[in-house]
Amino acid sequence: MDTYEKIIGLAKRRGFLWNSFELYGGTAGFYDYGPLGATMKRRIEDIWRDIYVIGEGFYEIETPTIGIEPVFVASGHVHGFSDPMTVCSNCDSAFRADHLIKGIVEVPDTLSAPEIKQLIDEHGIKCPQCGGVGTFGEVFDFNLMFKTTIGPGTQRMGYLRPETAQGMFINFDRLFRFYREKLPFGVTQIGKAYRNEISPRQGVIRLREFTQAEAEIFINPRDKNHPKFSMVRNAVLRCYPASHQQNDSEGGGDSDAAGDDRAAGVIELTAGEAVDRAIVAHEFLAYHLVLTNHFLVRAGVDPARLRFRQHQPDEMAHYAVDCWDAEVLTDRFGWVEVVGIADRTDYDLSSHANHSQHDLSVVLEYDTPKQVERIVIKPDMSMIGPLYKDKAGKVLAALKNLKEEDLNGDEISIKVDGEEIRIARDVVGYETVIEEVRGEDVIPHVIEPSFGIDRIIYAVLEHSFAEEIVDKETRSVLRLPAEVAPVQVAVLPLLTREELIDPSIKIVDMLRRSGILVSYDDAGTIGRRYRRNDEIGTPFSVTIDYDTLDDDTVTIRDRDSMLQIRVQVRELAEKVHAMMRSGFDSP
Amino acid sequence: MDTYEKIIGLAKRRGFLWNSFELYGGTAGFYDYGPLGATMKRRIEDIWRDIYVIGEGFYEIETPTIGIEPVFVASGHVHGFSDPMTVCSNCDSAFRADHLIKGIVEVPDTLSAPEIKQLIDEHGIKCPQCGGVGTFGEVFDFNLMFKTTIGPGTQRMGYLRPETAQGMFINFDRLFRFYREKLPFGVTQIGKAYRNEISPRQGVIRLREFTQAEAEIFINPRDKNHPKFSMVRNAVLRCYPASHQQNDSEGGGDSDAAGDDRAAGVIELTAGEAVDRAIVAHEFLAYHLVLTNHFLVRAGVDPARLRFRQHQPDEMAHYAVDCWDAEVLTDRFGWVEVVGIADRTDYDLSSHANHSQHDLSVVLEYDTPKQVERIVIKPDMSMIGPLYKDKAGKVLAALKNLKEEDLNGDEISIKVDGEEIRIARDVVGYETVIEEVRGEDVIPHVIEPSFGIDRIIYAVLEHSFAEEIVDKETRSVLRLPAEVAPVQVAVLPLLTREELIDPSIKIVDMLRRSGILVSYDDAGTIGRRYRRNDEIGTPFSVTIDYDTLDDDTVTIRDRDSMLQIRVQVRELAEKVHAMMRSGFDSP
Repeated sequence: MDTYEKIIGLAKRRGFLWNSFELYGGTAGFYDYGPLGATMKRRIEDIWRDIYVIGEGFYEIETPTIGIEPVFVASGHVHGFSDPMTVCSNCDSAFRADHLIKGIVEVPDTLSAPEIKQLIDEHGIKCPQCGGVGTFGEVFDFNLMFKTTIGPGTQRMGYLRPETAQGMFINFDRLFRFYREKLPFGVTQIGKAYRNEISPRQGVIRLREFTQAEAEIFINPRDKNHPKFSMVRNAVLRCYPASHQQNDSEGGGDSDAAGDDRAAGVIELTAGEAVDRAIVAHEFLAYHLVLTNHFLVRAGVDPARLRFRQHQPDEMAHYAVDCWDAEVLTDRFGWVEVVGIADRTDYDLSSHANHSQHDLSVVLEYDTPKQVERIVIKPDMSMIGPLYKDKAGKVLAALKNLKEEDLNGDEISIKVDGEEIRIARDVVGYETVIEEVRGEDVIPHVIEPSFGIDRIIYAVLEHSFAEEIVDKETRSVLRLPAEVAPVQVAVLPLLTREELIDPSIKIVDMLRRSGILVSYDDAGTIGRRYRRNDEIGTPFSVTIDYDTLDDDTVTIRDRDSMLQIRVQVRELAEKVHAMMRSGFDSP
Repeated sequence: MDTYEKIIGLAKRRGFLWNSFELYGGTAGFYDYGPLGATMKRRIEDIWRDIYVIGEGFYEIETPTIGIEPVFVASGHVHGFSDPMTVCSNCDSAFRADHLIKGIVEVPDTLSAPEIKQLIDEHGIKCPQCGGVGTFGEVFDFNLMFKTTIGPGTQRMGYLRPETAQGMFINFDRLFRFYREKLPFGVTQIGKAYRNEISPRQGVIRLREFTQAEAEIFINPRDKNHPKFSMVRNAVLRCYPASHQQNDSEGGGDSDAAGDDRAAGVIELTAGEAVDRAIVAHEFLAYHLVLTNHFLVRAGVDPARLRFRQHQPDEMAHYAVDCWDAEVLTDRFGWVEVVGIADRTDYDLSSHANHSQHDLSVVLEYDTPKQVERIVIKPDMSMIGPLYKDKAGKVLAALKNLKEEDLNGDEISIKVDGEEIRIARDVVGYETVIEEVRGEDVIPHVIEPSFGIDRIIYAVLEHSFAEEIVDKETRSVLRLPAEVAPVQVAVLPLLTREELIDPSIKIVDMLRRSGILVSYDDAGTIGRRYRRNDEIGTPFSVTIDYDTLDDDTVTIRDRDSMLQIRVQVRELAEKVHAMMRSGFDSP
């Protein structure tokens, strides 16, 4: 049993994660969060909000999970969001074609569909399902968006969004006004995204429906320094730069490829050094690497199993300036991407501006207005009027848009209603004027940290899991941070006797009223009940015993140290809140 | 301009609600929550969690928004979740056919598709879009689930869930184990649900994608008393019982029908009276009416514009025992359903048990075991063996399942492999035994409070909106509860001067670190900035002035009373937290 099986077994048994629709046989690529999993998920999302929404001031918005076609044409998803697929003609199973040739080529992502097909044929790849050889049909691109139709009829296509990002990009102009037309500003979204995988086979690591937390930060393209960089300059990052990956066989690999951390490849350096040595492109990106690191560790990822891997040039989207993945080390899947942090330049806004025919540029005001030379075209109307008659107005408009360099030849060429018109140079005069310009139009650049919440939850479970021998028995414990643990306090009467149960229930009510999630458990020996709570990561257990009846005190037991302290019932809620913030108060 | 337009205008302008996809022309039935709307939404969801998840101990789970077909066959949605639709053959517009005959029949819901078509023809209904008469095609049932396919090919249909409930029902057996096999227990889910409306025309009131918060509480069908009923017995409810609606023209109406509160129909009574007088079916339901009332008022619904309307017998689902809607009064839409609270009996679990062929019954243990008479069939094997040869085993098994009443005639009839076999009565002996039975198998009943979060948000906006004359100008203010207001504190330097801005920014950082959502505003006169914050419901504004530089104090201004108090900067965060809990601390 590998660690993944152990974690998934625990997660299933105790109500963290369940295969969806199991009552009806289930379907790959879908997981339910059970009572403990959903609670833990919400806590992790709330930490993310605390850092990004409250801390950074990036307001959260919520846009639909269904999107209309033009949005995803502009974003490139209708045409570019696909995986190569092939079907076995013998057993009808569908496969990711690039996965079939793993081991034959190092980076199958870069091959075209016909190239993949050729390799499958040349190497006589067997169908993993039925073992048939030479049975694969053509390789074609399968679009990974779930499709639907909106309303009756089939005219209006809808897609389940492949990322939350587009809902923020298409609201750029409203958001810019909301932030009183100043850069930089950030906006966030936590919500479902979808990817209609061809045949997902990696459990919670590759889901068809998953949760993203994304921030889109719109910045001045002329200034990628971060105003608060001095606060993070000395924070240490474990970086795996692109240049270090070239000698490693796993370089540029799939996010889910197994692999080891190579001591030679990963370097520890401060955010300041990373920028100074041009390892990270600029301060804004480096600041967000630090913030991501901070979030992941606070959520419960083991810092020793966390690194930032830079995309290699051929791996990065063509428009991106620099891109880093936060990767976590897992026992079964090796290094797994959980966050992507990219400088996407003006790609998204420019594309939406083009497709929607809405100007999404903003005016960057200069500190002081600039004097700029500009030419003003002065066409000779006494000649243009008679020459072009009712087209004269349009000719004039076209001429006024000319630039200085268009006036170099003997003739001037313009287009009117699609038709080229050539005009003798001397019909058009011009003069140079000096104008005061208060700013310039730019399309903001976008810094995007994009978090895969489900993978982070799995990583936190695996990294916090420990087995240790206590009293000659194996104790399983999830050492979850107190603010992440689903159950915050277990209330346990020492014995299942009415005189202890009644005050226990009162304590449960009191703690709940103070906002603490409490479980009550009176079944089995106290030792077994401690173990049950250790296994789900409950940080504190409160035990009610016969002394409670005498002096109104209870014990609080710490999950990690297993130490106990005795406190007054009336101080209990406050004490628990304090310990959730600052840790167990050892005796 | 009616109130709806006013609210939507404010909501759009200030970033609460935006039409989705407006950059690409928009699509009816989808709304974005902007920065303030999404924040407010999250706060309302958190209040719901505080009451249901923490307070009641109903753990939250999270199941996929995409579901597979068998789930919705069992739930009845594949065959029954539809609206009658017709298309104008002249302009191709699609319409809810029942909406076309509103005003002609009182309750169009009860008519069949051909009946509706006949009425449309008889009354010569015009197409509301193009004005054509007699142009409507057949009326047919349009299924309201969004459809998609999971994975490649078309074999596996997927539907976007029409409610979050099914994800909880199909996990019943796991949840029952999670709760250590005891009734009652509750489970909750907050998430997206979908309804592919034919042509939604009511803005945020009728959405194609919306958020539900649902609780499914599984109870002992033999005992519908609530263990904590004594705590709510004296809570007052505004009830509109089914029997009072029969004289009112709007009785049994559509949830979105306009209408007035009829003094005669609505009665105020305590939860205890409601149960004692058999107005509400039982304690468990009445308890949840009170809890719903508590939630809605805490979220900001005006108690005077809130009532509980009982479903009329012909309006209620056939399996339900009793059903109440919480309705809020809105200016444009009249009384709008925002919550439904129903006793759904064993309908959901029985249906899933039948369709999945999994037993979803539970054993209700008796306090003391019962002695029960049972017959034991004793077939005469010396005759059955030779008679039925290799079928003998199956015949035996069929005989053992017989009940006492099957043994009355001269012959016994059983079925083996679909074939009827008749056996002479005297071949089969039986005897009566007394058995000790420790409990009985029952399928739990379900109490379901189901909340439409989007409508609640709209109601809270409308109910908290006020205009009043202050200093001869109209002040618009959202009197949102402090725990619901998106921005909790506005930090405002009295003047836009560096010496005041610097300490203001420090105060922003300090408040954010304490978990408060702060906005900073230094543009315009202080009066205008107060108004801007009044309009979005910010409960407290902190002003930094020249006294701050001298004595380290700031003023806190209360949104509602517009009074101000002066506090020490070092006490500010704590003071604000206290006032968010208990209200403004008047001078």
